Amino acid sequence: MGVVVQNIERAAAAIIDGLAHAGVATVHEAQGRTGLLSHRMRPIYTGARIAGSAVTISAPPGDNWMVHVAIEQLKAGDVLVLAPTSPCTDGYFGDLLAISAMARGCRGLVIDAGVRDVRDLTAMGFPVWSKAVFAQGTVKATLGSVNVPIVCAGAAVEPGDVIVADDDGVCVVKRADAETVLQKAQAREAVEATKRQRLGAGELGLDLYGMRARLAEMGLKYV
Amino acid sequence: MGVVVQNIERAAAAIIDGLAHAGVATVHEAQGRTGLLSHRMRPIYTGARIAGSAVTISAPPGDNWMVHVAIEQLKAGDVLVLAPTSPCTDGYFGDLLAISAMARGCRGLVIDAGVRDVRDLTAMGFPVWSKAVFAQGTVKATLGSVNVPIVCAGAAVEPGDVIVADDDGVCVVKRADAETVLQKAQAREAVEATKRQRLGAGELGLDLYGMRARLAEMGLKYV
Amino acid sequence: MGVVVQNIERAAAAIIDGLAHAGVATVHEAQGRTGLLSHRMRPIYTGARIAGSAVTISAPPGDNWMVHVAIEQLKAGDVLVLAPTSPCTDGYFGDLLAISAMARGCRGLVIDAGVRDVRDLTAMGFPVWSKAVFAQGTVKATLGSVNVPIVCAGAAVEPGDVIVADDDGVCVVKRADAETVLQKAQAREAVEATKRQRLGAGELGLDLYGMRARLAEMGLKYV
Amino acid sequence: MGVVVQNIERAAAAIIDGLAHAGVATVHEAQGRTGLLSHRMRPIYTGARIAGSAVTISAPPGDNWMVHVAIEQLKAGDVLVLAPTSPCTDGYFGDLLAISAMARGCRGLVIDAGVRDVRDLTAMGFPVWSKAVFAQGTVKATLGSVNVPIVCAGAAVEPGDVIVADDDGVCVVKRADAETVLQKAQAREAVEATKRQRLGAGELGLDLYGMRARLAEMGLKYV
Amino acid sequence: MGVVVQNIERAAAAIIDGLAHAGVATVHEAQGRTGLLSHRMRPIYTGARIAGSAVTISAPPGDNWMVHVAIEQLKAGDVLVLAPTSPCTDGYFGDLLAISAMARGCRGLVIDAGVRDVRDLTAMGFPVWSKAVFAQGTVKATLGSVNVPIVCAGAAVEPGDVIVADDDGVCVVKRADAETVLQKAQAREAVEATKRQRLGAGELGLDLYGMRARLAEMGLKYV
Amino acid sequence: MGVVVQNIERAAAAIIDGLAHAGVATVHEAQGRTGLLSHRMRPIYTGARIAGSAVTISAPPGDNWMVHVAIEQLKAGDVLVLAPTSPCTDGYFGDLLAISAMARGCRGLVIDAGVRDVRDLTAMGFPVWSKAVFAQGTVKATLGSVNVPIVCAGAAVEPGDVIVADDDGVCVVKRADAETVLQKAQAREAVEATKRQRLGAGELGLDLYGMRARLAEMGLKYV
Repeated sequence: MGVVVQNIERAAAAIIDGLAHAGVATVHEAQGRTGLLSHRMRPIYTGARIAGSAVTISAPPGDNWMVHVAIEQLKAGDVLVLAPTSPCTDGYFGDLLAISAMARGCRGLVIDAGVRDVRDLTAMGFPVWSKAVFAQGTVKATLGSVNVPIVCAGAAVEPGDVIVADDDGVCVVKRADAETVLQKAQAREAVEATKRQRLGAGELGLDLYGMRARLAEMGLKYV
Repeated sequence: MGVVVQNIERAAAAIIDGLAHAGVATVHEAQGRTGLLSHRMRPIYTGARIAGSAVTISAPPGDNWMVHVAIEQLKAGDVLVLAPTSPCTDGYFGDLLAISAMARGCRGLVIDAGVRDVRDLTAMGFPVWSKAVFAQGTVKATLGSVNVPIVCAGAAVEPGDVIVADDDGVCVVKRADAETVLQKAQAREAVEATKRQRLGAGELGLDLYGMRARLAEMGLKYV
Repeated sequence: MGVVVQNIERAAAAIIDGLAHAGVATVHEAQGRTGLLSHRMRPIYTGARIAGSAVTISAPPGDNWMVHVAIEQLKAGDVLVLAPTSPCTDGYFGDLLAISAMARGCRGLVIDAGVRDVRDLTAMGFPVWSKAVFAQGTVKATLGSVNVPIVCAGAAVEPGDVIVADDDGVCVVKRADAETVLQKAQAREAVEATKRQRLGAGELGLDLYGMRARLAEMGLKYV
Repeated sequence: MGVVVQNIERAAAAIIDGLAHAGVATVHEAQGRTGLLSHRMRPIYTGARIAGSAVTISAPPGDNWMVHVAIEQLKAGDVLVLAPTSPCTDGYFGDLLAISAMARGCRGLVIDAGVRDVRDLTAMGFPVWSKAVFAQGTVKATLGSVNVPIVCAGAAVEPGDVIVADDDGVCVVKRADAETVLQKAQAREAVEATKRQRLGAGELGLDLYGMRARLAEMGLKYV
Repeated sequence: MGVVVQNIERAAAAIIDGLAHAGVATVHEAQGRTGLLSHRMRPIYTGARIAGSAVTISAPPGDNWMVHVAIEQLKAGDVLVLAPTSPCTDGYFGDLLAISAMARGCRGLVIDAGVRDVRDLTAMGFPVWSKAVFAQGTVKATLGSVNVPIVCAGAAVEPGDVIVADDDGVCVVKRADAETVLQKAQAREAVEATKRQRLGAGELGLDLYGMRARLAEMGLKYV
Repeated sequence: MGVVVQNIERAAAAIIDGLAHAGVATVHEAQGRTGLLSHRMRPIYTGARIAGSAVTISAPPGDNWMVHVAIEQLKAGDVLVLAPTSPCTDGYFGDLLAISAMARGCRGLVIDAGVRDVRDLTAMGFPVWSKAVFAQGTVKATLGSVNVPIVCAGAAVEPGDVIVADDDGVCVVKRADAETVLQKAQAREAVEATKRQRLGAGELGLDLYGMRARLAEMGLKYV
């Protein structure tokens, strides 16, 4: 506790933006169905789809002091990722912090706790994925850390990892894997375009994926 | 496990559409306050109101193989209803499956588990009621069954039962009862139109429903 | 049980409206971070921001008889606040009751249980904060009380207290404190306008709030 | 609602007792991994292992009137199974009802709601599986039904089905299947005795079940 | 926040002890089914049955400083009652605090948060009712209050109110009502002794309570 | 997926045993209040206190194949730690697996899912910390991995880390830190012995920890 790591490495902007375009479900598949945060993480408004480099925050329950510290560490394209050190639903973050974060180019917040001023945040277009919306305020009394490895909503996140978030939830991609995952995601997207067309034309998945033989072998009975 | 029932009986289209028009709350009242699925079943977007014949799926946790099998059994006007064999929040269903289901005239999905690609599903107008939105993928390794009786989100559903779903949740109507329930629902709607007018004009429910005498008899005290 | 208090005192309309304008997060801060209901209380649609005088209802589980009784006690500008006597998710309230409540000038409902007909309520512009949306109906068989002190979603509410509700949740302000809280809320709003401008211009919270010295004293290390 | 079915068929006592001996996990496996109630159903004390014929109760939330009605329907060896018509945690059942049920030979209670007087019930040796322990009382104001089909904690239960319950939870066996399930359960028990011995002697499951080839074929890599 | 009320009134010891003897379910009934804390409050070990005067603590999430302050306010026969100002599961209390509280005659702890060292507390015979057992530690950085009115687990508690707790949960009795409630509880106990005997002899509740006529009138059908 | 790491490093036996003796709450404090798994992890019986080296399992939902694979990797003194790849409550583990694991010297299981046969496991003295007890069976159809880094119940665990578990929950100690943490834990134990004595003699924490000055400075008011 009480450490701020100032220099973190980030993935290339083009890779990050490519991952945002692919979206959470595709990225998650592309990296072998790993990296998802818990489904309790929900967006405060629908339609946002972002990716960015994680600036991580480990904060005590009910204490948002470290958010102020973390904002100084933000670079354009970053995403704040906050994990409380024990389960908490307090509203660590509201419109003033969002104004400050946006002024530094922050793309959004992922917080395994609460957020408030959601009407303002929605109007500002600052997306947040959280486990709660709650007006409950916090104090500034105890240290936490910034840019240390954390576990957020069940997923391990290191500073500089790529966070992808949309209406389906939040996924983390290890910085070192980001380029490979993007390639796989784009390959999936290409393949899926064809599938979409064939399925839309009425072809069955049973045929498209050649499942009938294996189902019969497993003993599926039609009656 | 491992059975697909191919021929199921369905209620008449006009009855099904009448139930959709009445909506979940009215249908639920009309059949004596039975048939509701748990309130954990929420729509991925607001405003949809559908009814259709249940094509049921019993699927293992984290395995969506049977969804592909079920889609072949769909007829126009059907609704997929999936219950996992143990609690699961994985995203069994996404945009590719929705395209395939829509190509066969499917009106929506009711799933006591997770769904993903919700932005796409919303754009396509394919409504889903689920207990979670979660990008978590599934495998295709173990058999389940299609068109067998299931318990979905606390309600017993048989294939061919009528599923009614809207912003208030999901209700199942036994196929054999559908016509009677529709009549009762329409009778309620007629009565409610009058009530709406009288209540809107300022008449109190206490008077409209003649409750004052019974309340006094029960001992209600005004102080 | 079985008591209806008919004459309750209310705060002045101008104070109530001022609190509505300030919103939940600001009011909650202004009164020392107290008075919030649980974050499980969510609005049925986004964008509403109301305040009103609490007409309280203590109701048995699955029994909405007292809602009818309470509606007679409503004056223009009131908010219904219902706490079941044990945890319940049933839909105590729907469009008929909303029509009746609106006819008496009711501004909304706060209910630590379920609500239904949410599509209609949304269309009517009658806001509800609840812990569930559920079509499940209720009976009218057992007495409760109206305008007695209750605990609703974890907060103590007395009849005539001011209820403030918006997308961030619900807050209760003691009637006797309402004027003072409004003054503090307005003071906060004035201060926050300046902060918003400075933070938007890129000034850091660390500097704006003068936090650096205390953080260093506490031992925060930059590495 | 409002129906009491007086004559129900029950499985043979020897079959029921055999199922009790096998226990929940074995019975559940023996019938193809079906019939389990939700894991939220927990025993009020450990060590009980029972089976009996279901006398079912469908009761309104917070109203235990039908429990009194059901007790008259009990025969020696029965188990009460109560499902509320909507989610409820109230304490429907306490020591007085247990005394009455025991006087009629009832073996226990399975209730998807609350129970109270658990210290007394424990002292009396009357086992209960419930989703809550809660002193909250109930009323006797609204009818339900006895010995009708219900869904209890996610499982469909018909009157006369065999209920098996122990520290692992609760399982329902269709009356018509009870004999076959017992045979399969006993066959499993015989096989498991051997497995127990071999595993205890240090033989690995990988070898005992011959899994190595299939794991290699699937691509498992040892590094 | 930041207030310690030093002189609180307490009920008479004989009344408190009488309430302990009656137990939670009986006391709760005796005062009209009010005053129960949420069923999420569970004892760390079974068999304890206590009553005592509430010394209340309002504490920030994750901060147990006020527990130390409260212990100084304890008199023999008191019960500590802690409500965090927002939901928290941290372990505010462990064996050192229990030793200190016992040294002052404290009878137990009711905490809508976590507790730890439960093996030691069990060995010491210091009963705790909590919503979680969790080793997570707390800080001592922010003020709360002692002996102010709080809402704990859904129930309003004032300092000096009588807390009754056993395996069925926790109930609060207003200090001013304690004597009356005790009389009613004892009256119930007397009546219940007779009922116990008659029910144990096989008499049905339907007859003992004379329910048959009303059930028939309500329309209950035996088939 | 599909990887088994065969050689992992473990901490020294004496260190592991020392950590077991200290227990979860002390170890957690000694390492700066980090490393706790979620409080949803509860023991199947009270009184066990263990420590061991983690053999980790990443398993698909509802599939316990990898448990068999992991058992071969166990050495005396190890603890199995299983995290499903998505939330699951199925009973992955029962008495046969426990017999097999005990035959290899395994000290217990930590599983963020379900366990069954808990009566047998209790009789055998094989302790398990789990989020559910559930008889629901699993399949053996899909690969997972053994001895890879996992996140289990919110904590990052690497193979060979030291797991400490008792009635307060479960804590993980990084292998490299184990010796240091043990020293700090033992230092705490020494200090706490003195505190225990002084607090037991009636000294207040306010005085023992010298808190009065700081509380006054913060503005605590005694009234």
